[in-house]
Amino acid sequence: MKLMMTKIPDEPRYNLKKWIGVCEIILAENGSADASHDISHCRRVWRLCQTIADRDNLDADRLALLTAAYLHDIRNYPKNSALRRSASVQSADEAVNLLTTRGFPISKLPVVHHAISAHSFSAQITATSAEARILQDADRIEALGAIGLARVFSVGSSFGAALFDPEDPLARNRALDDKKFSLDHFQTKLFQLPSKMNTEAGKEIAERRVLILKSYVASLMAELNLTDEPAVDFVDPELLH
Amino acid sequence: MKLMMTKIPDEPRYNLKKWIGVCEIILAENGSADASHDISHCRRVWRLCQTIADRDNLDADRLALLTAAYLHDIRNYPKNSALRRSASVQSADEAVNLLTTRGFPISKLPVVHHAISAHSFSAQITATSAEARILQDADRIEALGAIGLARVFSVGSSFGAALFDPEDPLARNRALDDKKFSLDHFQTKLFQLPSKMNTEAGKEIAERRVLILKSYVASLMAELNLTDEPAVDFVDPELLH
Repeated sequence: MKLMMTKIPDEPRYNLKKWIGVCEIILAENGSADASHDISHCRRVWRLCQTIADRDNLDADRLALLTAAYLHDIRNYPKNSALRRSASVQSADEAVNLLTTRGFPISKLPVVHHAISAHSFSAQITATSAEARILQDADRIEALGAIGLARVFSVGSSFGAALFDPEDPLARNRALDDKKFSLDHFQTKLFQLPSKMNTEAGKEIAERRVLILKSYVASLMAELNLTDEPAVDFVDPELLH
Repeated sequence: MKLMMTKIPDEPRYNLKKWIGVCEIILAENGSADASHDISHCRRVWRLCQTIADRDNLDADRLALLTAAYLHDIRNYPKNSALRRSASVQSADEAVNLLTTRGFPISKLPVVHHAISAHSFSAQITATSAEARILQDADRIEALGAIGLARVFSVGSSFGAALFDPEDPLARNRALDDKKFSLDHFQTKLFQLPSKMNTEAGKEIAERRVLILKSYVASLMAELNLTDEPAVDFVDPELLH
């Protein structure tokens, strides 16, 4: 039995393509993105949004979703900045401004604004629309898996965090502090993400990508304890008699 | 058959312990280490040195090896600094100065100096002593595995490298450039390390830890191509007839 997609986007494909072009230009013009929030992150978020919308058969406005996905980080601050909490609302305002001057359909602007405002944890805004729920899931998935792994150590080092606490990497006997140790971020946030997903598809993808992180932590602990190596196997000659 | 270590270090254990204490104080006083070259890196390198010396039954001066392992990065420069090539010789000079003022046995200083000078790729100095060959292997192993994975993205971001090239992550159709893309470092350096190891034990450990990196790259590529997700499986109703 041949499988294929039957869902047709609610926008003509050429229109989505045109707005991808516009968003890429906007990002290039506004680019102060770090390695973890560059244009490739935005492209992947958009692709994940489509995957989630398709798999869960969600009734989302594809054009609003596209522009929200591309512009969700247009105002980005370091993880340890006090401005971070308002960054998503600032991004939403800025995205709406930028899209308005480029002739984006005005009726869709509130959808874009809410999706961007609500996408971030720090904003503490409940995602109420399908577009907002999808974008939030897609962006959170990017914090997981092999991609998330690269991003967590990159971001942590950008604000001076150590890779992990060598005395107690898993924080068995201390409070978690992901500003100080990047590995702590796995426990403070990343491992909880699957349970916070809005969509079924998002949850499935997140669960799979959390396994990558857990397998990484297991490898790391084995290396730190040198248990990834066979024990030193010199045989005591005394014992052979 | 009971397995145990029979090799006795050539230094009394209390003496090694005393010099670990001295080195830890030196590092604390000279600390400008980044997340990838902090004291826990030095401790792990020393532990790996012992593992390699034990497993290959190498005749290495443990006290010289210990101090070389702890102080090998005492002068460290960013990966993209012009000073980097001479950093290991500068570290060797500085280590010898610091140890001399603390009453370190003068006869062992040349061994320490050569091991530190030769440990780095950039220095292009051939490691001729057992201590130098062991230290070089131990330090290179730290670039691999789960630990190396965290370090490569942390170091890359510190000098503004992107995590990977989203257009061509594996550099199939472009020259490798690990100053621009952290993932390129896997191919420019990390995957070659096992073949450059000096010791049998070092080579075995390096081979195992390269597998972690290769498995990581496979996961990353699957995520970038979205092949870690089942294909969208809407069945075209037309095809059911």
